[in-house]
Amino acid sequence: MIKVGIIGVNGYAGGEVLRLLARHPQVEVAVVASRSQSGREIATCFPSMRGNKVGDLQIVPVDPTEFSGCDLVMLAVPHGVAAELAPVFLHQGKKVIDLGADFRFNDPLVYEDWYGIKHAAPDLLNEAVYGLPELYRAQIKEARLVGNPGCYPTSILLGTAPLLKNGLQEVELLIADSKSGVSGAGRSAKPELQYAEVEGDFKAYGLVRHRHVAEIEAVATAIAGREVRASFTPHLVPMVRGLFSTIHLVLKEEMTTAELIRVYQDFYQGEPFVTILPEPDLPQTKAVNYTNNCHISLRVDSRTKQLIILSALDNLLKGAAGQAIQNLNLMFGLEETLGLELVGIWP
Amino acid sequence: MIKVGIIGVNGYAGGEVLRLLARHPQVEVAVVASRSQSGREIATCFPSMRGNKVGDLQIVPVDPTEFSGCDLVMLAVPHGVAAELAPVFLHQGKKVIDLGADFRFNDPLVYEDWYGIKHAAPDLLNEAVYGLPELYRAQIKEARLVGNPGCYPTSILLGTAPLLKNGLQEVELLIADSKSGVSGAGRSAKPELQYAEVEGDFKAYGLVRHRHVAEIEAVATAIAGREVRASFTPHLVPMVRGLFSTIHLVLKEEMTTAELIRVYQDFYQGEPFVTILPEPDLPQTKAVNYTNNCHISLRVDSRTKQLIILSALDNLLKGAAGQAIQNLNLMFGLEETLGLELVGIWP
Amino acid sequence: MIKVGIIGVNGYAGGEVLRLLARHPQVEVAVVASRSQSGREIATCFPSMRGNKVGDLQIVPVDPTEFSGCDLVMLAVPHGVAAELAPVFLHQGKKVIDLGADFRFNDPLVYEDWYGIKHAAPDLLNEAVYGLPELYRAQIKEARLVGNPGCYPTSILLGTAPLLKNGLQEVELLIADSKSGVSGAGRSAKPELQYAEVEGDFKAYGLVRHRHVAEIEAVATAIAGREVRASFTPHLVPMVRGLFSTIHLVLKEEMTTAELIRVYQDFYQGEPFVTILPEPDLPQTKAVNYTNNCHISLRVDSRTKQLIILSALDNLLKGAAGQAIQNLNLMFGLEETLGLELVGIWP
Amino acid sequence: MIKVGIIGVNGYAGGEVLRLLARHPQVEVAVVASRSQSGREIATCFPSMRGNKVGDLQIVPVDPTEFSGCDLVMLAVPHGVAAELAPVFLHQGKKVIDLGADFRFNDPLVYEDWYGIKHAAPDLLNEAVYGLPELYRAQIKEARLVGNPGCYPTSILLGTAPLLKNGLQEVELLIADSKSGVSGAGRSAKPELQYAEVEGDFKAYGLVRHRHVAEIEAVATAIAGREVRASFTPHLVPMVRGLFSTIHLVLKEEMTTAELIRVYQDFYQGEPFVTILPEPDLPQTKAVNYTNNCHISLRVDSRTKQLIILSALDNLLKGAAGQAIQNLNLMFGLEETLGLELVGIWP
Repeated sequence: MIKVGIIGVNGYAGGEVLRLLARHPQVEVAVVASRSQSGREIATCFPSMRGNKVGDLQIVPVDPTEFSGCDLVMLAVPHGVAAELAPVFLHQGKKVIDLGADFRFNDPLVYEDWYGIKHAAPDLLNEAVYGLPELYRAQIKEARLVGNPGCYPTSILLGTAPLLKNGLQEVELLIADSKSGVSGAGRSAKPELQYAEVEGDFKAYGLVRHRHVAEIEAVATAIAGREVRASFTPHLVPMVRGLFSTIHLVLKEEMTTAELIRVYQDFYQGEPFVTILPEPDLPQTKAVNYTNNCHISLRVDSRTKQLIILSALDNLLKGAAGQAIQNLNLMFGLEETLGLELVGIWP
Repeated sequence: MIKVGIIGVNGYAGGEVLRLLARHPQVEVAVVASRSQSGREIATCFPSMRGNKVGDLQIVPVDPTEFSGCDLVMLAVPHGVAAELAPVFLHQGKKVIDLGADFRFNDPLVYEDWYGIKHAAPDLLNEAVYGLPELYRAQIKEARLVGNPGCYPTSILLGTAPLLKNGLQEVELLIADSKSGVSGAGRSAKPELQYAEVEGDFKAYGLVRHRHVAEIEAVATAIAGREVRASFTPHLVPMVRGLFSTIHLVLKEEMTTAELIRVYQDFYQGEPFVTILPEPDLPQTKAVNYTNNCHISLRVDSRTKQLIILSALDNLLKGAAGQAIQNLNLMFGLEETLGLELVGIWP
Repeated sequence: MIKVGIIGVNGYAGGEVLRLLARHPQVEVAVVASRSQSGREIATCFPSMRGNKVGDLQIVPVDPTEFSGCDLVMLAVPHGVAAELAPVFLHQGKKVIDLGADFRFNDPLVYEDWYGIKHAAPDLLNEAVYGLPELYRAQIKEARLVGNPGCYPTSILLGTAPLLKNGLQEVELLIADSKSGVSGAGRSAKPELQYAEVEGDFKAYGLVRHRHVAEIEAVATAIAGREVRASFTPHLVPMVRGLFSTIHLVLKEEMTTAELIRVYQDFYQGEPFVTILPEPDLPQTKAVNYTNNCHISLRVDSRTKQLIILSALDNLLKGAAGQAIQNLNLMFGLEETLGLELVGIWP
Repeated sequence: MIKVGIIGVNGYAGGEVLRLLARHPQVEVAVVASRSQSGREIATCFPSMRGNKVGDLQIVPVDPTEFSGCDLVMLAVPHGVAAELAPVFLHQGKKVIDLGADFRFNDPLVYEDWYGIKHAAPDLLNEAVYGLPELYRAQIKEARLVGNPGCYPTSILLGTAPLLKNGLQEVELLIADSKSGVSGAGRSAKPELQYAEVEGDFKAYGLVRHRHVAEIEAVATAIAGREVRASFTPHLVPMVRGLFSTIHLVLKEEMTTAELIRVYQDFYQGEPFVTILPEPDLPQTKAVNYTNNCHISLRVDSRTKQLIILSALDNLLKGAAGQAIQNLNLMFGLEETLGLELVGIWP
């Protein structure tokens, strides 16, 4: 059994890692830690885990000595904090997956520009692998340190990678209109996230300079082999989970929807968690929620010469905890789908 | 008192016309009609109207003789039906506002292409006025027959008119990503609109060829004085009301956000129902729901040379019944805001 | 015009008072105050009020000198605070309506027992009138100081008053199972009221000793003329507004549902805001939300000798701000329904 | 591997059986059938199952010859239909679990009184076992035919059984106020279950004579060994899943909350799916949803001599499909929790 510690277990991403690992046949959650909730039992943070073994786990403080028996530490902590913790655990010979932004960039200047703080461990950025298995599987298998992708970037990069990789887009600009359920905003109490404020409300936020722009552009540029710019607008949807991106691109040459679907299906051939939907089906968050799946559709609008790509995933699974476990499986040579063979819930 | 008849009163748009006119100081709802619900009382269709005078109204069949005392007939009926009813009422000397699509187009071929049926009253299309007061106020005041705009087109056209009118956009293409609450899909029972199916679900629909494309392009082209194409993607949001459009355009010349806000504020100077939000505010559906207001924000993304326009309104008010009453007021020489001086609800 | 000041305007009840008074033909909102939000504009607290005159109101600090021009002050503040403010305003010759609990009790000991603090103005308790117009209309008309009823007590007392008054119940026990939308819990940010925590969650709270028990028992006892005990269980429903009580009583003598409906209809004859539904109709929160109405149904279950009473209202209207305005109208000799002639919204 | 057929797979209960069995280590879903959806693939009925093996299952017509290889047939069909199908499958030597009401009663007259139709297989009623494992485990293990309990009765019977069994209640009357998410109303399209109608609406329905009364009374009477009457009021909550019962009983002798909790904990000692919450915790639907757990709390209100019992479960799991699989496990001598070791989801 691989022994895992989770830091920041009381948040939504940390709790989801715990929930999924509780049913993972090769992993034991050995330590759960939190800065603010130490001393409490998991079931008091997550009443849904009561009556289950993991519900009885005691939350410990964020103290590296607590993790001595762990093979891997999952960091579900605010950015900045992970950069401080990761070196300690790596030094102890453990592997680390950071669910935050600290290890998603190669260039510390880009990180500092968009996140507004100095990176505490810039030396690790070259070693850290961007944990998007569909694109970096080989590197992840060898990695000690994985920067788990953001939820928005995952949906947009999976939705555009086949096109970027094959050089099929005309201009360098990618327009992405993304919408997320509110669990993406985290668990700490904010006035604007109260039920009575969110219900019935659809809105945009973080215009023009949302931090995920930097991540999308850096990885898309790497995939395409030439500079890609993203005009990215995130929105908040009155629902708990689910993330949906509507992406606009211009094709270099005329192609039909059917031809493009074939390109995508070839690209994702054998991928366990990415499905290119056949016509006339379209993605919807309810079809991917509570699973590690990403559903993608494509439509060429020949009237306007636009390619419209739709991409849906669960922000807490393929957009966070599920992808982290997929990375864990790869890092330890396990079957990639272990603990993630989930059948989507309906209704 | 102006006497109004409502056909299709049992639907969401028809019911909203009734609800608003019930408090209009210069209008009396004289007749309410419905094909399927005739014989019932309004309060059995709308339990929220019980205990109010309008709750006791008896629904009559859709028979033109029932409307003899009316000055104006509001048609909240499926497309195709209005084209058959309107000539009858006009012939009787009444005015007509159609909340559906039958009188939004000048060209019957465009209508037939996108709606798939022959127009029953093509001769009236030249006379009919597109009921967007902010653009066609003078014509509406003289009109006998008004085609009330669609909800999506209203949000997109109000969001882009100042730009189109002033020739500030570079390319002819307008990209609009719109999201609507489910009341926009009407009241008749459909499996995919059941609560348990919609809750937690965000999805796109009607890709590439949603019927509102034709309406957006026709009016945008008229405003711009040159051909405008729309790449329009509608989405369904798990909420009852509210419509939000995220629009992308490319500016001809570099302008700042502040400059553009000034252009918009000038354009909508004195308009009672359109507000250009100051920075850093952004629109949200909860702020416009239950009012006839449209809130608009603009942001120039100089990095990607994109102009992003956000536009929010209540699909049943400014997107349907509210705008219809605004048109009614204009057609009868009343104060334009009568019956529409609504203070938005929170929470 | 009657000049009104509102203290605690930034909360849900205070904001609802403002929203309703903004359309009241005989009232001018002269001052809006808040401890935490002073200096801001109303529209920044309530984006839904932007574009409306009240949206431009400046929030002032809670300083009695600010209210010099007011005829009446509405207190929408935490319990304890109102007891300190009310004497000041009464002394200035103003009338006062307290939307909180400080002036709902005659007996300061009952207040202190259930609210856990000493009452700051016990001398005023004898003078204060319980603001339930259907029962205390005459006294309210003469009152300087009204204690506006709690939302749960309003629904339960309106639901049982005809029975209690006519001595038709057998035992002294009243069982009330009540359910409320989350706006009843106020606007301040609490972790357990975040959208992602509330959505999909139905739960009970405040078992056995919710503070409204004391209010229900005190008033029910006064109405019945003998001691009445309440077993009251409040629940939280994942919705914004609406309050629904299911009440169980035992009848002294056998009566049919039809007979009881007649008793209730007689009792509420002429009441503008209470409707006894005819069979087979039942109340629902959506039918009363956004109105000052209370809908009530009765069913005798002869098998179990139980009388089941259902009572629905909007917790922010008839359960708070609407009732406060009804009281204001009475206190100033205005038509009782002024500003409250609202047609319920659907959907 | 045990081979199972599911009839009525396209409904919410049938689909949930399929979803859970897809991950059951000892069961293979061999046949899925539906009257209305035969010929379609599962993934078109349940988009959430796309990309999973069960998503590719082909739905066959409801024809007994299709089930020849099955060891057990799960019936998720309307009442009346199961009574016709069950004898056929039993005759073929298969076991049968009916998720509907047809085999929950011993007395065909009670069934006919409350369901309004003649029972098609009254001879089987004596043999059929009521599938509530916590009370009838031994009999279920031996059963060929199990009548799976209703969702409301499961919550109420689990909540009261320790009391009834130990003869601790005073009067024969049990008052139960239950609230359910809308998935309990089934999947077929009904106007009153459309999203825009349900959202924001809390209401009661089926007063006095809901069919579950008969089931509650029959089983409660059997448990208590003397006649028990139920005054049962179901309510609809704007949420998809979850069922919550608030139960009132009068104790024969004075007992404290702590004493009663001990009685309940003893009674449910070793039960894998029933948890008696310690003080001060209270049940909530979000804590049991997507699991087979039932959470129960007790509070003695000494002021009013009432015992208040709160009981929460997921109507589709412990209230339907989960309990059916628990029964399946017992009927085939498997570990009772197989396929049901679910960790509750949050948020």
